[in-house]
Amino acid sequence: MYRDRIRRIRRGMRAVGASHLLTAAPEHIRYLTGFRGEDSAAVVSGGAIAVITDARYSEEAGERVEKLRKEGVRARLVMRGRKGLAATAAEAVKGRSPVLGVEERRITAATWKALGKLLRGKGKVKAADGIIREERAVKDGWELRTMRKAVRIAEKAIEDVRGGIRPGLTERRIAMMLHAAMVHYGADGPSFPTIVAAGAGSSRPHYETSDRRVKKGEPVLIDWGARTEGYGSDLTRVFFAGRMKPPAGRAYAVLLEAREAAIKAVRPGVAAGEVDAAARRAIESAGYGGRFTHALGHGLGLEVHEAPLIGAGSREKLQEGVVFTIEPGIYVPGRWGLRLEDDFAITAGGRTARLGSLPLEPEWAVTGE
Amino acid sequence: MYRDRIRRIRRGMRAVGASHLLTAAPEHIRYLTGFRGEDSAAVVSGGAIAVITDARYSEEAGERVEKLRKEGVRARLVMRGRKGLAATAAEAVKGRSPVLGVEERRITAATWKALGKLLRGKGKVKAADGIIREERAVKDGWELRTMRKAVRIAEKAIEDVRGGIRPGLTERRIAMMLHAAMVHYGADGPSFPTIVAAGAGSSRPHYETSDRRVKKGEPVLIDWGARTEGYGSDLTRVFFAGRMKPPAGRAYAVLLEAREAAIKAVRPGVAAGEVDAAARRAIESAGYGGRFTHALGHGLGLEVHEAPLIGAGSREKLQEGVVFTIEPGIYVPGRWGLRLEDDFAITAGGRTARLGSLPLEPEWAVTGE
Repeated sequence: MYRDRIRRIRRGMRAVGASHLLTAAPEHIRYLTGFRGEDSAAVVSGGAIAVITDARYSEEAGERVEKLRKEGVRARLVMRGRKGLAATAAEAVKGRSPVLGVEERRITAATWKALGKLLRGKGKVKAADGIIREERAVKDGWELRTMRKAVRIAEKAIEDVRGGIRPGLTERRIAMMLHAAMVHYGADGPSFPTIVAAGAGSSRPHYETSDRRVKKGEPVLIDWGARTEGYGSDLTRVFFAGRMKPPAGRAYAVLLEAREAAIKAVRPGVAAGEVDAAARRAIESAGYGGRFTHALGHGLGLEVHEAPLIGAGSREKLQEGVVFTIEPGIYVPGRWGLRLEDDFAITAGGRTARLGSLPLEPEWAVTGE
Repeated sequence: MYRDRIRRIRRGMRAVGASHLLTAAPEHIRYLTGFRGEDSAAVVSGGAIAVITDARYSEEAGERVEKLRKEGVRARLVMRGRKGLAATAAEAVKGRSPVLGVEERRITAATWKALGKLLRGKGKVKAADGIIREERAVKDGWELRTMRKAVRIAEKAIEDVRGGIRPGLTERRIAMMLHAAMVHYGADGPSFPTIVAAGAGSSRPHYETSDRRVKKGEPVLIDWGARTEGYGSDLTRVFFAGRMKPPAGRAYAVLLEAREAAIKAVRPGVAAGEVDAAARRAIESAGYGGRFTHALGHGLGLEVHEAPLIGAGSREKLQEGVVFTIEPGIYVPGRWGLRLEDDFAITAGGRTARLGSLPLEPEWAVTGE
């Protein structure tokens, strides 16, 4: 698996003229080697890979490199010692007039400047941001199965918790219940800090879960996901304890339409911005202009936000193998907000497949009182 | 509070000759404004501050800016729209030959390069990394009280969970129990993903909690902390279900000595490296040379790792108001590892104060079987 991934990255490197590629993004390092550590890096060159880390991770990294070698990967471990990341990485750059590709959006300005100095007169540093990011956007069969599992765990957990969403319960308590249920069903943990937003808090797309208590009839927006084998799911539902108040009821129906419009627009080769536009049109033409304040969706995998971005004007193309969210929302500041989010993939043959099966009916969204 | 913080930052800016200071580090933005959001930034200039964010956070950021104004801060909100962070920040840089200080260790190379281009011919971009970082290292009375609370919550939680650490329990189950107990005692959540490492896993300083089950007599290393009002605690203890095996027993005593040596070395004005050296000497002279593979400690606050770094050779000076961890460890790869960690402050008058009171006796570390 890692051997193939490194081979594909090498193809991307050739395309931009980089003899070496440095990444310091944890998920990129994990994708290429399986190694997980902070303050670490990897340098790919000519089909070989150097894993750079410090003494805290020597045991894990050593084992990982051994496993990669057994898989036929020319891997080696480079310990940083007391040297900086840039100095250690620069030493791994060899050969005649090497060109080191770096991910300018994933390394700090300090590291970038240090690399430039260290390689002066020896080689060049060049921006090479998209290579691993784009490779990661296309999932293989194992990744897709793992992500279906992450969705299934999150869905089972909410089914357990849903019945207990009643007036008086705090947001944080609901988040804890979900966490415990996800771990019970086999998650390593939540894929991001669960958002539980009751009442007016639901109008804030990135609300921070608090000790506020659920009141009858108001929306309880829950944005959660499970992580398994590194891969996360990302779902959103809105519940209403006892009954759904009318303005929310209408907006809920509009979100379902927007979602359908988006799903219809998905196909291999479509620009992601067109999918966003389809949903946005449905929301605006229903009279909620300016109330959908974020992108329609995003790629999903080792990171909860990865390629492709499905937002207004996005030119990234959807293709077979991408896994992404569709999450239209309507927000009335200070009053209420609704969002419905599921995870989808474009599978073999260009078919759009939803990765889960959680109900969407408004009746299902009304819980006990 | 924010007004004073911004005033102190302004002093630091004058010292390096920056007319403006850009930060994109979430904890720095929170420290200066109270605002919390991803993909955001703040620009300080002449005692005023601009908060830069996108539509997802318009409600929170708008309220925050209003509150800052009531406090007497010249604050304003700048929405990014579809422009990048660099372009929006560059627009906030005005005046005759402005010098924009940036945190090169906290912004990406891409943002740094974009700022350079955007300001070409109008102003200069200059590295200004330490200003907010160093200001944040010194805690005020409220921060210190909040951090004592974060420690107290974490300690109460482990006292609850300790008795239940028995053979057969999984690492993940212990982490869940701790999480629930911390929330019960008033935490917003854990301050970082709890590490529970049973048996050989304990030899890995950054082990990832798994479904491994605790066995009788082996070390169960727990590294955990609680977060409240943004501030986190960070503690480590090792437990032994039923009994403590001999090699661990000896190392445990050595850690206690190393810890005492470090505490004795702490005083205002000391170089942090000297404190690390005191502990390291104690461990090495006891015959565990090369077995203490990480820094002795680190500053603690809004981030779990912040200034000062207490590692080998660190020249950062400890001073009144710093809050930091002391966490000596001994690791035998593939076999076992021990670490003891508490949180300390240098309080008024230069006194070293431990922020908690969790027992350290080896007898306390032995739990039920």
